[in-house]
Amino acid sequence: MENFTFWNPTRIEFGIDKEKEIGKHLEANGIKKVLLAYGSERIKKDGLFDTVAASLKAHNIAFVELGGIVSNPLLSKVYEGISVAKAHNVDAILAVGGGSVLDSSKAIAAGALTENDVWDFFLGKATVEKALPIFDIITLAATGSEMNHGAVITNDATHQKYFIQAPALFPKVSIINPQLQSSVSKEYLVYSASDVIAHCIEGYFTATTHPLFISKQIEVIITTVMETTEKLLENPNDDEARGEFAWAATCALNGLTHVGVAGIGFPNHMIEHAISAMCNIPHGAGLSIVMPAWMKWYRQYNETQFTRFATTIFGQKSAEEGIEALEAWFRKIGTPTKFSEYGIEEKSLPVIIENAVDNAHYFGMEKVYTKEVIAEILKNAL
Amino acid sequence: MENFTFWNPTRIEFGIDKEKEIGKHLEANGIKKVLLAYGSERIKKDGLFDTVAASLKAHNIAFVELGGIVSNPLLSKVYEGISVAKAHNVDAILAVGGGSVLDSSKAIAAGALTENDVWDFFLGKATVEKALPIFDIITLAATGSEMNHGAVITNDATHQKYFIQAPALFPKVSIINPQLQSSVSKEYLVYSASDVIAHCIEGYFTATTHPLFISKQIEVIITTVMETTEKLLENPNDDEARGEFAWAATCALNGLTHVGVAGIGFPNHMIEHAISAMCNIPHGAGLSIVMPAWMKWYRQYNETQFTRFATTIFGQKSAEEGIEALEAWFRKIGTPTKFSEYGIEEKSLPVIIENAVDNAHYFGMEKVYTKEVIAEILKNAL
Repeated sequence: MENFTFWNPTRIEFGIDKEKEIGKHLEANGIKKVLLAYGSERIKKDGLFDTVAASLKAHNIAFVELGGIVSNPLLSKVYEGISVAKAHNVDAILAVGGGSVLDSSKAIAAGALTENDVWDFFLGKATVEKALPIFDIITLAATGSEMNHGAVITNDATHQKYFIQAPALFPKVSIINPQLQSSVSKEYLVYSASDVIAHCIEGYFTATTHPLFISKQIEVIITTVMETTEKLLENPNDDEARGEFAWAATCALNGLTHVGVAGIGFPNHMIEHAISAMCNIPHGAGLSIVMPAWMKWYRQYNETQFTRFATTIFGQKSAEEGIEALEAWFRKIGTPTKFSEYGIEEKSLPVIIENAVDNAHYFGMEKVYTKEVIAEILKNAL
Repeated sequence: MENFTFWNPTRIEFGIDKEKEIGKHLEANGIKKVLLAYGSERIKKDGLFDTVAASLKAHNIAFVELGGIVSNPLLSKVYEGISVAKAHNVDAILAVGGGSVLDSSKAIAAGALTENDVWDFFLGKATVEKALPIFDIITLAATGSEMNHGAVITNDATHQKYFIQAPALFPKVSIINPQLQSSVSKEYLVYSASDVIAHCIEGYFTATTHPLFISKQIEVIITTVMETTEKLLENPNDDEARGEFAWAATCALNGLTHVGVAGIGFPNHMIEHAISAMCNIPHGAGLSIVMPAWMKWYRQYNETQFTRFATTIFGQKSAEEGIEALEAWFRKIGTPTKFSEYGIEEKSLPVIIENAVDNAHYFGMEKVYTKEVIAEILKNAL
């Protein structure tokens, strides 16, 4: 195992009715006023907004709203949130929604404590040293943002989908009530499954050092996500499956699957970010298109691990069979595996490739992921 | 999954030479003077003491020593440590050693900030609300104390081996350099393996609710410990195996294997504490005697999980075969499975049983673990 530091101070409050305690947790952290960030108006119809508002009121916590955060969340909305947070002098950000709402909240939390452009953090021109404390009620299990210190935002002016990471961005308290996630559509469930599997396989395949213990832990997350996804497609109200799915999603990107490994990269995310920043397709859907395509190309560099994957996850013998089985499973659950499913044709590839090459530089992978290599990978998804 | 709270703020610094940075971490936490707790004088011969002292000096951190902490650590030594800590007005406790040193340090850290008897915390007469900050360099992977908030101490006057748990007892920084553990004797390696497996199976078998995801995570820890123990018995200098063993030991009791479960107990620890408090045999050795004996009795209450264990860990079909395979594996690695290996005969059982019955009350399991039941279990180990 390689040397590592592991530190994850986020308090997880998992389970039924935990959202009703949000006011208590805020008060315990000395918070008096929050920016309440959310996505669509759905939370006002389904009662979650009222539940949160009642809990805040019961603990004398004031709030100002920031609604309308979209999937593939936008920098323009982050700027708006920073303005509101500063104008109202809030003590904290409370995200109520999925990964997009939480990632936007993290960016707002960092931006609220600087006079500089928050995008500078994403460009690496400045480092996030401090941020307003972040709290969340996560309503979609997928990104793992509820237990990590990263955030991904799309600059709507430049189509750059970039990220920040900093210790100050760990949420203080993350509330995960799986029942709140039972209204997630079938489409977003399978995109989420794809996203979690992507978080698992990036390090699993790309690491130059990968302890067997860590490989095994990742395989357990993958099989759990696959099994529970199938159960939830049959019965969206299977609370046990919903809970295990949610917790597996959190565990896939809370740092523990990356300890002791060396040399990992996130090439699938690098390529997918280039696609969704251009075409605005759901992140998980983009990933289920990219993964098989990338695996067919990358397999040659880690045949041993690909063979292990095939055997452990699918009971197959060869690396090739494992990739085919994953692609078949994606088709089975109904997440796309080809560009054509979004009407993206070969003639659209050059602009995506150009954006992916830019991303390769951003991810520090430009030596391997040249224009030619990215083109070869993307052609596998046509 | 059941509702749960998970919070674990310990910073793990894992890897080669990490002990050289202890001064840096103490300084970063504002520490000026520590109580340096350790066990035998071995750390003065093998250079670790000098390494630590040099790092403290480089960061202007004064220290007072408390050596001589023994396995199955004693309350009398904890009292001595509290006196020293108070007399020298230290800011923190630095444990350099195994679980016994660290558990003693946690008790000292709590006792140093109260005027009451520290044993009251163990008796449940008082709650640990605060403690001096705890830092450690762990030289034996087994107890998991380096990433949890518990400590076990034996009252040498009463032969009670009791525990405390409190958020204030999470170490601030735990340093795990697997290479420091390569001088651990073959005996203590296999006792450690037994201890880690015990931490795994307690919840695995006793929980009334046990999510499949958590079962699978535990199985991965068990197989990792088994595989790496065998490798280390062949080659104590197998750094990769040493590292994975150490990290698996930490993961076995850092809270993550207990999330979402319900109704778990620690009957094997309850019984073993009664044995080692009376006979002073190594904790892990006591556990490898108790576990098969307990499993033979308890199996009837959770045949399904015992069958799963047999299949997953040993490729066996029945619960009975799984228990036999575990016992055979303990014999294979050289950790005891019968009382006779320590010269404990049937005539010695009554006093152990009496102590175990006392422990059953302490653990809140007296309704199930009556004198008769404990006698039945212990007879399986004769």
